[in-house]
Order: sequence, then C-alpha cells, then structure tokens
Amino acid sequence: MKEFDTICAIATALGEGGIAIIRISGDKALEIISKIFRAKSGIDIKEIKTYTMRYGNIIDHETEDLIDEVIVSYMKGPKSFTAEDTIEINCHGGVMSTNKVLEAAIKAGARLAEPGEFTKRAFLNGRIDLSQAEAVIDIIRAKTDLAMKSALLQSKGSLSQEINKLNEYLLNVLALIEYAVDFTEDDEELDPTIPIRVAEGLENAINNINELLKTAEEGKIIREGLSLAIVGKPNVGKSSLLNALLKEKRAIVTDIAGTTRDVIEEYINLDGIPIKIIDTAGIRETSDIIEKIGVERSREKIEEADLVLLVLDSSRSLDDEDKEIIDIVKRKKSIVILNKMDLENKIDKNEIASFENIIDISAREELGIAQLKNNIKDMFFSGKIDGESLVISNTRHKQALIRAEENVKSALERVRNEEYLDLISIFVTSGLKALGEITGSELEEDLINKIFREFCCGK
Amino acid sequence: MKEFDTICAIATALGEGGIAIIRISGDKALEIISKIFRAKSGIDIKEIKTYTMRYGNIIDHETEDLIDEVIVSYMKGPKSFTAEDTIEINCHGGVMSTNKVLEAAIKAGARLAEPGEFTKRAFLNGRIDLSQAEAVIDIIRAKTDLAMKSALLQSKGSLSQEINKLNEYLLNVLALIEYAVDFTEDDEELDPTIPIRVAEGLENAINNINELLKTAEEGKIIREGLSLAIVGKPNVGKSSLLNALLKEKRAIVTDIAGTTRDVIEEYINLDGIPIKIIDTAGIRETSDIIEKIGVERSREKIEEADLVLLVLDSSRSLDDEDKEIIDIVKRKKSIVILNKMDLENKIDKNEIASFENIIDISAREELGIAQLKNNIKDMFFSGKIDGESLVISNTRHKQALIRAEENVKSALERVRNEEYLDLISIFVTSGLKALGEITGSELEEDLINKIFREFCCGK
Repeated sequence: MKEFDTICAIATALGEGGIAIIRISGDKALEIISKIFRAKSGIDIKEIKTYTMRYGNIIDHETEDLIDEVIVSYMKGPKSFTAEDTIEINCHGGVMSTNKVLEAAIKAGARLAEPGEFTKRAFLNGRIDLSQAEAVIDIIRAKTDLAMKSALLQSKGSLSQEINKLNEYLLNVLALIEYAVDFTEDDEELDPTIPIRVAEGLENAINNINELLKTAEEGKIIREGLSLAIVGKPNVGKSSLLNALLKEKRAIVTDIAGTTRDVIEEYINLDGIPIKIIDTAGIRETSDIIEKIGVERSREKIEEADLVLLVLDSSRSLDDEDKEIIDIVKRKKSIVILNKMDLENKIDKNEIASFENIIDISAREELGIAQLKNNIKDMFFSGKIDGESLVISNTRHKQALIRAEENVKSALERVRNEEYLDLISIFVTSGLKALGEITGSELEEDLINKIFREFCCGK
Repeated sequence: MKEFDTICAIATALGEGGIAIIRISGDKALEIISKIFRAKSGIDIKEIKTYTMRYGNIIDHETEDLIDEVIVSYMKGPKSFTAEDTIEINCHGGVMSTNKVLEAAIKAGARLAEPGEFTKRAFLNGRIDLSQAEAVIDIIRAKTDLAMKSALLQSKGSLSQEINKLNEYLLNVLALIEYAVDFTEDDEELDPTIPIRVAEGLENAINNINELLKTAEEGKIIREGLSLAIVGKPNVGKSSLLNALLKEKRAIVTDIAGTTRDVIEEYINLDGIPIKIIDTAGIRETSDIIEKIGVERSREKIEEADLVLLVLDSSRSLDDEDKEIIDIVKRKKSIVILNKMDLENKIDKNEIASFENIIDISAREELGIAQLKNNIKDMFFSGKIDGESLVISNTRHKQALIRAEENVKSALERVRNEEYLDLISIFVTSGLKALGEITGSELEEDLINKIFREFCCGK
C-alpha cells in the first residue's frame, strides 16, 4: 500500500437529515479521532477493534468545548472502502453540526478530501480497478433500477473480468510471437501452426470485444438516459402526450421518500430506461400562454435528441409548417405520432411514407401509449432488458474498446498477409494498452485525476 | 419498555452523497435485516453483537436479486437512540440505491416511520424527556454555533434538571400541605411554621422560574434568529449596508462544505446570533433596476421585524418621505443609521431626537459597522453570550413556565392571605402540571404527536 496523508469529508448528502457521516481515511485516522473523541465509557478510542462502534462526544481538541454527540465506527485497512484505516463519525445531520465535526477533524490534522478522493484511494491502493471505481459514482447517480443494477454489476468487477479475459488472449498471442521470433533468430524454420494459433487468438479477442461493443448503445442509454424531443407545430397535442408519458414518472424512484422529486423531475422511467425529455418547460408553457415554439426552436431540440417524436394532428391535413418540421426530422431516428386517432383521419399517408415508424394515438384518451412505449424500446434495445448481463455503459470504455479492436484487427490483417511477426506484436501491444485504460493500469495520472474530479465530494 | 411495531426510514439527508443510512428500529429489527442481508462472511446476521458491523449485500428477499452492497451496524436496545433494537444500513448514497434498500426493509416487514418517530420512540421508551427530544431537532436545524451549543445542552438534559428541581420544591410544598391538612382533620392545632415553610417553597420556585424566563427572549433569538428589517427611502445606502453586514455571513457555516450556501442564504451570523434579513431580494434589486420600495412596502417589513434599521442619508436634509418612514419606525425597536458619515452632515438631529439608538456609519467605507453590531447585540443580550448556560429557547416551554409561574404566584398569594391549605394545593398541582408539559409527563397524546410531526423524516 502506498503512503498517503489522512483525508476527511462529509460522506452523506448535504442538507437537513437525522444523521450525517464524516469519514476519515488514512494512517492517522485513529490518531486524529483520539484527539477529538471522548468515549462515554472513558476507554481510549485507540483501543477500538475493527468493525465496532463507540458512543461519545466530539470535542474541540484545543478548547475541550463539546461539539456534538456521536457514534464512531472503525474499519481497519485493508478491509475498508479505501483499503486504509477508516473512521466514520455519525453525528447529528444538521448543516451546523456536520460542518463543526468536519472542522474539528481538520483542526486535528486531517486534510479535506477532494471530490472522489476516497474512491481514488481504493483504486490507488489496488482494492478496485478504474472501471469499478467509475461504477461507484454510477450507482450513486443511477436514475432507474436498471441503471443501478448495471452499475452494481460493474462495481463488483464484471467488466474487469471481461477485460482480463481479453488481456489473456492477447498476452498468449504475444507469448506465441516471442517464441516464434526466438526460433527464427536461430534460423530454424517457423512452426507453421504458429500464425494459425496467433490468428485464432486475435479472432477470439475481436469477437469478445465485438460482443461488448454491441451492448454499448444500450449501456449508454441505461446509464445516461435517452434524450427525447417531442416536436410538432402548436396545438397538435405535444403537452397531452408529455402528460400521458409522465404518468410513469413516479416509478423512477419509489414514491415513499416523497421529497426526491426535484432530482428526477425531467425523467420518465420506461421499463427501466431513463428518458430525458428535452425542454419539458417549453412543451408545458405552450398549453398556457402564447405558443412560441417555432420551427427554429424545434430544429435545435431535434439536433440534441437521440430520438424525436414528431406529433401531427391527424384530424387536419398537413400544412406548410408541418411539412417543414417533417423535413428536419427525416434525418433523425424518429417516430411519427398521428395524434387524435379518435377523430377522422385527414392526413395523406403518402406524405409521411419516408418514415419507418408511424403510430396512431390519442394522447387525451391515452390510446396507443403502451404501443408507443414498446416501439421506443424496440428501437433501442434488442431482446430482454434485465440488468443481469454486463453492458458497456461508459463512453470512455467504449472508446478504449474501439481502439483495442482497431489494433487487434490490424494485427490480424497482418498475420493473414504473412507480415513479420514482430511488427504484428506492436499492434497487439497497442491493443493491450487500450484495454488497460479501462481498468486504469495504462492510464496517465492526469487522466485518472480528471475522472475522479467528476465524483461528488465525500465519495 | 412499551411494545411497538418495527419502523424504518432514510436517516440521512436526501440527495446525492457517498453514503446514506437506512435505520430500522424495533423488536423485529434483527429479524427483518436477516431476511434482506447476506453477510460476505456467510455468518447469520442474527449472531451480530451490539455495537459491531458487518459487510455484505442487501437483497430482495423474494427474488434474491442483489440490491446494494452495504455495511450493517447493530445497537441493541436500550443502548440505542430509540432505546429499541436498532439496525443501521450504510448503503450507496444515491436516490435509487437509498430508496431500493428502504423498500426492501419495508417489504421484509418494517413500517415506514413517520417524521420524528425515532425520536418519539426515544421519548415514549423513557430514554429522554420531551424537552430533550425537542432539542434533537433544534440541533439539526441550528443556524449558528451558539444555537447548536444551546440545543446540545438541552438535549443532554440541562432543562430537564431545572424542571426537576422546580418539581421538587412544589412536591415538598404539597407534602407539607398534606401533612398539615391531616393534622387539622384530627382537630389539632396547625403548626405555625407550616405556612411559612410553604411560602418559602413557593418563593423558591417562583425565583427559579423567573430566572429561566429571563433567558427566554435571548433563547428565542438564539434558536429562531432575530428578524431584521433594513428600511429607508431609495438611494440612502441600504444595499451597501446589507453587503457590509453580509461579510460575516460565511461564518455561519464554515466555508469548507461549499455547497450549503442555499440553506443559510438569508442569515447573517452576528457573534453566534442568527440574523434573518427580511426581504433581502427587495433591498438588492433596488441597486439594479428601478427602486420600488415605497413607504407601503417598508411598513410591512417593519411590522414583521424584531429590529428595524432605519437608514438615512446624512449628507442630505430629511424630506417628507424620510419623515413618513421615521413616523412608522418610531413604534418599533430600532436603530437609526446615519449613513455617509464621510460626507458633511446635513441632518438636524432634533428631528430624530425621539430615537434612543442613533449611529453614524459609512456603509461604503465600512466605518461604524462593528459599532452597529455591538449595538444590536446590546439591545437583545445582556452580558456574555457563551452558549454554556441554559436558556429557554422554545416558545412552548416559555408558555408553560409562564403558566406554572401564574399558578405558583396564586398559591403564594393565598398562603399570605391565610386561605385554606387544600385550596392552595390545587394551584400548586396546576403549577406542577404546567411544568410537566415541558418534560412531556403531563402532555396529552395529540399534543405530543403534533410536536413530533414537525420533525424531519428519518429522525
């Protein structure tokens, strides 16, 4: 384990709560807590055993002033989140109490942790790899059950295992090449099975990378959500459609907590897929005051979206404004919604023949909404979405896999062209390096720092 | 200990954090956690010792689906916050993870706790009295160091001790009366020292209640803050004065947490006194756009305030608008601020002679601000404000003390008028009942419920 200073931070969300936790991690954790904690029992906190707790007071170690009544728990490294000696102080969950306890820890010698620094320690101390560290923040930020399960799997090392398997294929290939090169240097004849076995190893690696990359689009959507634009000219029923879709919203978080609404306000949960509606406010305001969403604003929304729902009023024939919007939407992944199916249809279907996905609904009567949801799912997910299998959800991982694949493919091509084996080994090594960026073994320090800086404070 | 069902709730603040805690309290806490927790070690969680922790997974006990990776801690009753068997689950601090774990606990048989129900259990189980329970929420909501210290003292039973002392005085009086009444029933002569000793006991009680009531104004300000209105006609320097005062703001919470600004946005910390500025926005906007605060708006602000700062521009003589505002402010606790002391004074001091507190400042140059702050403190606090001594900070407690005092005074008056001792005992008993409302021993159930309903969820 490397040597680090001892850090501390508020580990719970800020705000009013019953309890808050201040976490201290590092070699001096026990020394620091012994300065500021007085156990009710009178026993020195330094005697505390790992995975046990003590009740007492936090005091200002200079003035002996009482700061808060707390419970202190201890996890001795390496069996802790950071793999370092870790103290957690459970204090009253107010802004004042939490900050005063944190301040006491800092005055007693701890340094305020940077965002993500606890998780970074877990990584630097070798307890988890980088993909597992990144999963921790994905768990915290998960907006649906599915996103949570997928992140949890990754945090437990599911991606790391796949990467290790790929590494093994490529390391075997390198070993074979080295063996072959050694032989040819001795002017012996090259074992004719070697290029075949090298090619086999590379093919295996490519197939496995491919399987992972196939999940990337679904994975990204599970993690970041699908951004959806609802467009159409005024009064075609965009607002009613939004409301019909939003009926599902509460399922994103169970309603029991009550006060978490803000966090998820703009997301719909579609069977575990978080769907982010672009410009909800824009759609809503149209039903109130003057409709202001012109073609220009629609164009911007369409640009941003992963998927566009183009709403048309099927009880009127298409006018120029409709046609203008249709022209823009054509270029995007989209579903044409023929709203007001309860009224007589007046749209000439030839005019929308260029769209693959057309669906009749009545937003007001909530007809066709389930069908619409299925269509959306089918467009982005193949087969079952269960959260039990590994998906690539992180763009950084996807990019690294693409680079790995390119290099391994180059290597394979060269094997087939019977080029020099030691030239081939350069590409294989580059492939390994790309894979190492995922687990962090091959990533430069400032890039690693950049990843952790995006974490929340106290994690 | 009474029999209750087992309750659970999220005990930390809601939002994104590294860790969140779900607390389960009641006889079935261990039974419930054993359904949903699988220890990494494989050991049954029911074997857990008090004040120790276990690492493992929370699962859905019906589907065995993994929900989150957690650490579970156990505090066996009565040595826990509620005095009941208590389990705390430290899970990932996301909205999704926290709610999923809570849901699992509910599905396994726990009931979602009402706001304040954990603290209510601590009270109903006799671990703390009502004044201590109320202090818990005051600790969490404290806006300054002083408010925190005062609440902490109360939570440790400082008020309870005073009430117990008062109870003793009054119970002694009742015992004396009972003894005397028994004697007179036997037609013996009344011991002449008894009325004297009864009067002494009552006087002691009154003096003590008085001492407590003296602290009530300061106590209320420490707890709830002092509401301050800054008034004056346009362009006299209200905005600059606000800025000069706000320079102290950061000290309310130490700046290290960074993101807690919202919570305390409108408070100034004046040596531990939280000062709430009425209509900060109103003052600020005046420096930007059109000044809109007319006399009418000032009148409303003045009505709301504990203290009014009337700002006058001393470089101009008073006009009708100034005089109109002066007329309204006269009736309130106020300080007249003669701003722009760096310029030549043109105000005729006779016109403001009716004010006791007049002070020259220059808001822009920050001259006289310290003096102003001292004036404010002196107006509301006598002597040292240290947070080490007991203050009555809760209006409910104050009201009960006033009623106790009234009854004890009535009793004393009747003793002095040599009225019947058993009539006197009725007043003493009423006094005791009023005191019992503070500790909760004499409060009706729905009033107790009302107090706890104002707590936050999870406490």
